[in-house]
Parts: sequence; structure tokens; C-alpha cells
Amino acid sequence: MNLDLLNLFIESVADGASLESVANIAQETATVNDQLNETILTGNNIWMMICIALVFIMHLGFAGVEAGFAQAKNTVNILFKNTLTPAIGLLTFALIGYNLMFPLEKGGVFQWSGFGVNFPTEESSSYTAYTFFLFQGMFAATCATIVSGAVAERIKISGYFIFTFLFLGLAYPVIGMWQWGGGFLSQMEVPFYDFAGSTIVHSVGGWGALAGIAVLGPRIGKYANGKVNDFPGSSVPLATLGVFLLWFGWFGFNGGSVLSADPATVSLVLVTTTLAAAAGAVGGAFMAGLMFKRLDLGMVLNGILAGLVGITAGADQMSMLDAVLIGLICGSLVVVSAVTLDKFKLDDCVGAVSVHLTCGIFGTLAVGIFGDMGFGGTAENAGFPQLLAQLKGIGICGVTAFAFSYAVFKAIDATIGLRVSAAHEKEGLDSHEHGIRGYTITYDE
Amino acid sequence: MNLDLLNLFIESVADGASLESVANIAQETATVNDQLNETILTGNNIWMMICIALVFIMHLGFAGVEAGFAQAKNTVNILFKNTLTPAIGLLTFALIGYNLMFPLEKGGVFQWSGFGVNFPTEESSSYTAYTFFLFQGMFAATCATIVSGAVAERIKISGYFIFTFLFLGLAYPVIGMWQWGGGFLSQMEVPFYDFAGSTIVHSVGGWGALAGIAVLGPRIGKYANGKVNDFPGSSVPLATLGVFLLWFGWFGFNGGSVLSADPATVSLVLVTTTLAAAAGAVGGAFMAGLMFKRLDLGMVLNGILAGLVGITAGADQMSMLDAVLIGLICGSLVVVSAVTLDKFKLDDCVGAVSVHLTCGIFGTLAVGIFGDMGFGGTAENAGFPQLLAQLKGIGICGVTAFAFSYAVFKAIDATIGLRVSAAHEKEGLDSHEHGIRGYTITYDE
Amino acid sequence: MNLDLLNLFIESVADGASLESVANIAQETATVNDQLNETILTGNNIWMMICIALVFIMHLGFAGVEAGFAQAKNTVNILFKNTLTPAIGLLTFALIGYNLMFPLEKGGVFQWSGFGVNFPTEESSSYTAYTFFLFQGMFAATCATIVSGAVAERIKISGYFIFTFLFLGLAYPVIGMWQWGGGFLSQMEVPFYDFAGSTIVHSVGGWGALAGIAVLGPRIGKYANGKVNDFPGSSVPLATLGVFLLWFGWFGFNGGSVLSADPATVSLVLVTTTLAAAAGAVGGAFMAGLMFKRLDLGMVLNGILAGLVGITAGADQMSMLDAVLIGLICGSLVVVSAVTLDKFKLDDCVGAVSVHLTCGIFGTLAVGIFGDMGFGGTAENAGFPQLLAQLKGIGICGVTAFAFSYAVFKAIDATIGLRVSAAHEKEGLDSHEHGIRGYTITYDE
Repeated sequence: MNLDLLNLFIESVADGASLESVANIAQETATVNDQLNETILTGNNIWMMICIALVFIMHLGFAGVEAGFAQAKNTVNILFKNTLTPAIGLLTFALIGYNLMFPLEKGGVFQWSGFGVNFPTEESSSYTAYTFFLFQGMFAATCATIVSGAVAERIKISGYFIFTFLFLGLAYPVIGMWQWGGGFLSQMEVPFYDFAGSTIVHSVGGWGALAGIAVLGPRIGKYANGKVNDFPGSSVPLATLGVFLLWFGWFGFNGGSVLSADPATVSLVLVTTTLAAAAGAVGGAFMAGLMFKRLDLGMVLNGILAGLVGITAGADQMSMLDAVLIGLICGSLVVVSAVTLDKFKLDDCVGAVSVHLTCGIFGTLAVGIFGDMGFGGTAENAGFPQLLAQLKGIGICGVTAFAFSYAVFKAIDATIGLRVSAAHEKEGLDSHEHGIRGYTITYDE
Repeated sequence: MNLDLLNLFIESVADGASLESVANIAQETATVNDQLNETILTGNNIWMMICIALVFIMHLGFAGVEAGFAQAKNTVNILFKNTLTPAIGLLTFALIGYNLMFPLEKGGVFQWSGFGVNFPTEESSSYTAYTFFLFQGMFAATCATIVSGAVAERIKISGYFIFTFLFLGLAYPVIGMWQWGGGFLSQMEVPFYDFAGSTIVHSVGGWGALAGIAVLGPRIGKYANGKVNDFPGSSVPLATLGVFLLWFGWFGFNGGSVLSADPATVSLVLVTTTLAAAAGAVGGAFMAGLMFKRLDLGMVLNGILAGLVGITAGADQMSMLDAVLIGLICGSLVVVSAVTLDKFKLDDCVGAVSVHLTCGIFGTLAVGIFGDMGFGGTAENAGFPQLLAQLKGIGICGVTAFAFSYAVFKAIDATIGLRVSAAHEKEGLDSHEHGIRGYTITYDE
Repeated sequence: MNLDLLNLFIESVADGASLESVANIAQETATVNDQLNETILTGNNIWMMICIALVFIMHLGFAGVEAGFAQAKNTVNILFKNTLTPAIGLLTFALIGYNLMFPLEKGGVFQWSGFGVNFPTEESSSYTAYTFFLFQGMFAATCATIVSGAVAERIKISGYFIFTFLFLGLAYPVIGMWQWGGGFLSQMEVPFYDFAGSTIVHSVGGWGALAGIAVLGPRIGKYANGKVNDFPGSSVPLATLGVFLLWFGWFGFNGGSVLSADPATVSLVLVTTTLAAAAGAVGGAFMAGLMFKRLDLGMVLNGILAGLVGITAGADQMSMLDAVLIGLICGSLVVVSAVTLDKFKLDDCVGAVSVHLTCGIFGTLAVGIFGDMGFGGTAENAGFPQLLAQLKGIGICGVTAFAFSYAVFKAIDATIGLRVSAAHEKEGLDSHEHGIRGYTITYDE
């Protein structure tokens, strides 16, 4: 026995604190440990709650973009849809969607836990069950809103809301479960990778939008006289505001998808998200300048959204340079896509398909092209194997989302009718169903 | 003496670390404890500061709703009021209100601590004194803004600001102190319960608004020819933006009222707040559809606000289902209330009384009806006793706020005059006092 | 050897926990310490990330103010610039600016670390390198945006973007490095003090704006017929929205400049920032009422911005009363400055020079007048020495920023031309370069 050491110990202890207090340290340390875990949870949960608020405000972003880019005579109709869509979306997700998407017993395809929210009993160290539910609910609602912009100015409101309810009650959560609920896409030999939903949210919404405009047909006069006729939007400032708010909200959309406040990952995600958006703006401006010979604000705005959608699948996997490249490509792609859709007389009122579907697909592929999981990357399946997994995921989600949406839109069309009358469309949807105008800016002179 | 154990101890210690270092653990643990407490404070304080920013942006929400729903000719006047109201409100609260509402010696009715801010010396573990002051200041300012919407389009700006100063300098902080400053409402045998201010903020503001429109009388032409004439608002997108920002800000209004970032409570509050807003939208759409036979965006928007006001008193006490029910009821109630006010020729320019007073009262009662404190609840005074306490609080605050506001408005009316001239009102308030127009959208053809 | 104490220790230890576990505490405490440091980083980093989002949304604020105050015929042009400015600003800062502003080897004047971002290897305990980069990038972009408002309605878009690229790639980061990158201004005997950039960001942007309008000359008709002619802005609600968003974002601009979430400092900063803005509104309203005899919303809005710019240099040094005084002075000053600029036929489309330059200078001086560093303050160099240091900093940064900007604008003017043709200006910039209108609010009757 080393009595010298022991003596030294006793003395040093007796010096500063009683021996009893030293014995109490064990208890104290355990308490500190508990408090620390609670503090870690609190910090992570704060970040997730902020992200909830940020994703929520994206709904105002969508409302701004759509009301700004659509004609004044349909403003109230669009705002009515875009206000009720998150409301109905959140309620539907609480009632049905959440349990479909995050089944208590993981791994199945339809492991539904019943109506209402059965929160998982296990607690995460990063968020509470309520936080997780609300973050996911805000995501679900954005997916539905993507559709609303494309089909605007001619869809019947009853048909729109039936679609929204079925899309959010069935299609979105089931597809979401395949990847984020522990389903088969996440359990393939080479797992599909979709960080924050370029495919699961954006392209799924984009496929719904494509199905909608395919079934509806173009607006009257859009492709008249052998050319593409643009209908001027009511308020470009409103559309611009919408895009800025979407960019702002995307900090939460991507930043919250880390599902914790882990400083290294979240701050990387914010940087890649921001640079992709910035490069998307430049890409859109450049490609539109090349193709249309004008300084096209609409394409700058859609370029930003394109960059954001494109980075979403791999925001945590990319370098700053990767993010800039993805943004530039998506910003250019969105212009080409919009022109291409017009060639097929697919009339997308706000460019939702080009932004969310085209760039959602590219962004998902980008995971297998750039970054750790891409060619030259360091991940186990980097390059072709990952790219193949991405293609599988895109294909499976795409076929499902499009087939479901097309069938639902067709069924609505065949029964209660999907499209308003020609007279009603020409007159504008506001006067008829809503009885007020979007803008009344008059002065007695 | 157990020498074996001691030996084991010495060896295991000597193995990994010197005995001195073990002796230092006591000191280290104390340091860790201090740092941990500082970290807990930092986390909670971050959340409260975020909530300050969120409640602040509600003032833009109010400005949007009011300017959007009012006629174009009064836009600048409304924005002038709604910009100066938070400014003057914050300054008044710093100078007088804070000390009235949070007296250093708790329990009194007029324990005023003098002009300026005397911050409590005791520190909270959840926020600094500056954070608490600013959060409360943002709340106070919202209360005043509630009044501004109802009385818009005919009130004299001088009278409005005199009222605002007195209301925020006296009525709001004194009533607030009765509940949140440790006053008698919080110390009744069955304490009044108002989590985030359905009564203390919203109905108090609503009573002020009711007094204002009662003294002012309706706008010229509002009830002409035996019917209720709607004056079209200048910009429905602006009003919609306002409502989304209010919903966004309410995450801070209710979420911050937890006064910490406690993960379980705050995340529950965000969920009940969100679901009540969503259900309010549905309730408003449904009831307006029933009564007016149209898809009434105005009532969807007011339904959202109604749901938010309704959940505010018990956001931390409700289940998800409770929150949905409260939202549905408030969304319906706001429509009925608006129609009822019009029957009494009480002309509320934006529906502020229906939203903040009617639903503020119902929301406060809901605490005694639903949730832990309601019928079937588990709280000590659940059911009738709590409901009775709620009624007492509503009554006492209501009588005080209304009597004070009515007296002030009458006094202003009798002296400097409260209402602009008929000519001035018809011409619009902008051209006269402000010299510019809200919108100048002209193009040379 | 104190065997009694030892016995007591052994027993108390053996009582609650094995000696081994006590020996393990050392290890555990070390682990707790690591986790605690990570948690402290996480909390601080969360705050900084929120501030990034808040500063980002200031760009929507600038867009709103500028598009709202400018004529309808130039709306799209302004939005095009204000959308691409943060995009190009962030990319430029990533490519060049960051390395100029924060050289790896501190202290030099041109210690450039090369193209692209070479993040410092040392980690902060308050934020990650990515967080720091993004926060600084958002700051840089705001500085460029300040210029865009002043020169609106007549600048060529090519010239504007060339200036923006050079300004953000060279002038801003070099001047910023002098103070925030460890350069000579921060190392003077009495160091220059600029907490969040009244000089480094706002006055630098303001000097750029002044140079721009000096080279460009006034808009056609602005000073015709011997008087100052106001051109009505397209949308006062849009300008108001912009100011509210700038105030909102300033919580992040100043709050994030603490570079941690330190509760005491950040909450003080939020309070001084808010009170200065509120007092600025009152100061602007009062001085405009005095000078123009009207309730001038424009000056209330610019008064808010003036108060915000004014508090920025010393937001962490001021008492609540100091903040109110600074706000009142700046709110008054912005009105006087705007009138004075008009006397010199310096035509600033939105009052950017008066807000950012005039009040940026005063706010920087205020550090040496009020608070700890001012007269009666307790800081080492309080009063005249600090005031002198402030004057030096203002002068050096001002001469540099103005000379650089003037030279660049002159060079652009002499080569590709800085100003659009008179016909183009009269017609409005939208129709020509962008091919769409900002607002299309028409209804078939």
C-alpha cells in the first residue's frame, strides 16, 4: 500500500473539502450527468422547434410565389387554397399520415398504427415526440402545396381539396415511410439516400403537380396561335417575397433534417443550402439570358428554388464547391425544363414541376455524382452503386406518386369534375366562388 | 478499516490518474456544475430571445392584416399607426408599464417601483432580466395593436395615440400584474389560469377595441340602406401575409410563455397552438360556407387567428384533440360573433373584437372545460371550480379594461375629438394627414 | 496520517458506491467535461445559426424598402438587383472576400490566403468555421445592398453588378479586416470600437451609395423647376414590410455580433437595439412633423432604420437610456440629412445615405459619447481618447470606401457607361431590360 500517495490524497482532500463531500461526488456527478442529458435534449429540441417555425413560414412563401405569379383575377382563390392547404395538411397528417409514415413497428409497408397520433414511446436525445411530429407535419404540408401552384387558375376547389386529402393521407406518408420510416428504400443493399427530401418531398409533390396539369390541360389561351402566351402575374414583389421566405424557411427544412443541432453537420448544411440557392440564382439568370435574351427575374427566382431543391437530397454530403455546382446546374435546368414542358403543352402556372420535379430528380442523382457518396467520394458505395440506388429510389417513388396522383385526378375529373367552366376560368375564379377581389386599389379623384 | 478496498481504490486511482487529480475532482465537479447552470441558462435564454423576435414580427402581421383589410385610401394612416404603436408601446412599457406589471414587492395592487425599469435583482435560471423585460414589452405592444384594427378608417390619430399611451401605461400593466405580476387573480383560492394571455392580452385588447368602436360609431355608409355594406380591402395578399406572420409569431407568443425551453412543455405548446390554428381555419371556412354560401377567405384568416387566441389560455394544458376542438369552435365562433356585432351596428374594421375578445373569452373558459383543468381533468380544481375561477378572471379583467377604455375614449371625444370629419373620412385619411398614397401603380401607355 | 478521516471516507464511499466507481468518477468527470464543452458549443452555435437566418431575411427587408419606395415602373429592375445582390455577394465572399477579411495569419494588411475559403484551423467554442463564414457572408451581402437603393431608377444593371463584385471582393473585406480580421484599426493604442458595424458595414455601404449618386447624378425631374419633386413609391405597405423585416433581422445582426449566446450580453444587445429602433421612429416622426408639417410615414420608417444603424456600433456598451437617446438623435438626424442631401442635389432614391452613412457615423461616434466608453464611462479610454479613436476609424474607412467607390463608378461610367438613356429612364427600367411589369392588377368589367 502506497501510504505516501494516500497521505497526499487525504491532505489535499481535507484541504479543500471534507471527505464526505468527496464521497458525495459520485452522486453529484450522476446528477450532473442527468442534467447534462436534459440540457443536450433542450438544445437540440430548441433547434428543431426553430426549424418547425421556419418550415411553417415556407407556406407563406408558397402563397406569395403562387399569388404573385398568377393573374390578379385568381388571387383570392389561390390564397384560399394556400391557406387551407397547410391547415388541412397538418390535420390530415395528425389523423392518418404520421402513423403511416412512422409506424411503431418499423420495417413494414403498411404497418399502420391506427388513427390519431401514437407517439413512439422511445424518446430521442435530440427532440421530443411532439417536436418530431410537428416538424414532420410541416414537411407533409409543403409537399401538398407544391401541387397547388401548378394547377392554379383552372382547378375546381372541391377537386383540389379531395386530392390534397388523399395525397397527404396516403401517397406522401407511405412513400415517406419507405425511406424515413425505416421502410425498404432505406434498407436496400445500397440504401437510397435522400437527406431532406429532394425525392421524398419535392419530386413526389412535383409528380403530383405533373399529373394534375396533364389531366387538367392548359389554361385557355396559353398555347393559342401557335405560341406560348405568358399571363402576367399580379405582383412580382409578392412572388419575390415568397422566394425569399422559401429560402429563409429552407434553413429549417434542411437544417432541421439533421434531426439535431449537431454544430458541424448543421452549419455545413446551412452553407451548402445557401450556396446552392445563390448559385441557382446565377444559373437561372445566365440560362434565361442565353435563351430569352432578357434579364428574367422569374428565372432568377425559380433558379433560387431550383438550387434549394437540388441541394436538399445531399446537403450534408457536399463541399462548398459541390453545392455551387449543383446550384448552377439546377438553376440552368429549371429554365430548360420550363421551356420543355411548354413544348408538350404542359401548362404549369408557376413552374412548380420544373423546380420540384426536375431539380428534385437531379438533386437526388447528385448524391451519387458529387460529394462523399459520388464519384471520387469516400463512402462505401460511392459512385455507380450509389447512383444506381438513387435511380431506383427516384423511379419507385416517381411511379408511385405519379400513378396515384393521375388516378385520383382522373377519378375526380370523371365524377365531380376537376376543371371549372371556360366562362368561369375567363372571368377569374375570385368573383365566382369567393365574391371578393384580391386587390382593390382605387382612389376618388 | 477495510484495507482491501482501500488498496483497490489506491491502485485503480494510481492506475489512471494521480491521487491529486482525484482530489481535484471535487473542485472540477463544482466548476462543471457552475458551467452547466450557465449552459442551462444560455439554452433557455436563447429560446426566449427567439420568442422575442417572433412576437416582434407579429406587429408586421397586425400591420398586414389591417392594411390589407382596410380600404386603399386609409393604407398609409393604418401603417403609420401600426408602425408607431410598437415603438411607443415599447417605450411606454420601459418607462412605466414594466414596473407596474412586475413590482419588486409582489402581491400589491399598485406596488409601483417608480419610473424606468428596476430589474428584479434575483436572477432566473431561464432568462436574464433584459430578456424578460423585452419579451413582456413585446407582449404589451401587441395588446395595444389589437385596438388599432377595430377603430381604423375614422379615428383621429392624436386621440388614438393618447389612448394607446394610457392603455399601455396603466390598464394593461395593472391588469397584467393582477395575474402575472403575482397579484390577486393568481392568488385566489382557485387561481385564475391564463397561460399566455387569452384574457390578459387578447380580451383586454378586445375590450379596448369594443369600447373604441362603441364610442366612435360605425364608418359612414357601413349600415346604410338597411344592410351591412362591406368595404373592399386594398390587398387580400397583404392580409393573408399578415395572418401567416401572426401564426408564425404565435409560436413565440405561446412557446415563450413557458418562460423556459423545457422540451416537453414547449413542444406540446407548439403542437396545440398549431392544431388550434389549423382547426380554426377549417371552422371559419365551414361556418362561413354555411352562413354566407361562399368560400370566404376572410373568415378562414380570422378563423386561424380565432383558433390561436382560443388556445392561448390553455396551450400547455390541452391534448391534441382538445386543441382541435377549441380551434373548430373558435373558428366557428368568430363568424357568428362578426355577424352579431354587425347586428348591433358595432363596426369593427378587421374583426378584431370577434377574434380577440370573443375567442379570448372562450379560450379562457376552455381551460375550465377541456384538458387537465377541465371537466374530467386531473388537476385539483378541475371542472366547475376552475371554470368559476376563469369566469371571475374574465369578468374582473373585462369590466376594468372596458370601463377604462370607454372612459378614456369618451374623455378624448369630449375634448380634442376622437373622430375625423365626415369629409375627411370619405376622402380617406391618407391624403389629408400624410400627404402620400399607399399605392401608386401607374404606367405610361 | 488522519485515520479517522480516512475511515469516514472509506465508509461513506463503501456505503453508497464501490470504491471502483469512485475511481471511475475521474473518467466520468472528464467525459462530462467534454460533453459539456460540446453542449456549450451547440448552444452558442444554435444562436449564431438563428442570427444567420435573421440577417439573411434583411435582404428581403432591403428589397421591400427599395421596391416599395421606388416608382412602379422600376419595380422589377430593383427586385432583380436585390435578389442577385445577396446571391452574387455570398459567392464573391466565399471566393475572395472571406480570405481577405479573415486572413489565417492575423495582423497584415493584405495577408490574403488565396481563392476559396481556407477555414481557420482553430475551432471556437462558440461556433463552427462554417457558421462563422456564413454569418460573415450574410453581413458582406448587406453592405452591397445598401448601395443598390440609393442608385436605383437610373443605374445600368451591368455597371451595378461590376461595382458590387469589386466592392464586395475588395473594399468591404479589406476594410473589414482592418477592424474585425485583427488589422491595424483594432490594434491602435486606443482601439477603434465598432461592435456590429455602424462603420464597417453601414457607413462603408453608405459611402459607396454616396459615391454612386454623386457620379450618376439625380433622376430626371427630381430637382426640376427649382424644387425637390417626390416620385411616389409603388407600395407603401411593401416599404413598411421591408422596415419591419430589417428590424427583425437586426436582432440577428447585432445579437449575432456577440459571436456567442452569452445571455447577459446578447439580451442587453437586443434591448438596446429595440429601444433605439423605437426611439428612432419617434425621432423621425417628430422631426418630420416639425419640418414638413405632416405625419410622415417615410420618415418614421427611415427613423427606425436610423436608430438601428446608430445603435449598431455600441449596442453592447449602452444603457437603456443611452439607447433611447441614440435612437431619438438618429431618428431626427435622418430627416435633416435627407433634406441636406437634396440641397446638394444628391438624389438618393430611398434615403440610404442618410440612414446608413449619416447615422452610421453618428452611431460610431456615440460609442465615444455614451456608455462605458463615452464621457463619464468607466472604460480605460472613456471619453475623448475613445472619441478620437472613433473619428480615426470613421475617417480611414470613409476615405477608403468613398475613394474606391468613386473611382470604380467613374471608371465604369467612362467605359461601358453607368447610367441608362434618358428615354429608358423615363419609360422605366422594367419594360426595357426585363420585359415584364411589377404589378398587373386589372379586372375585366
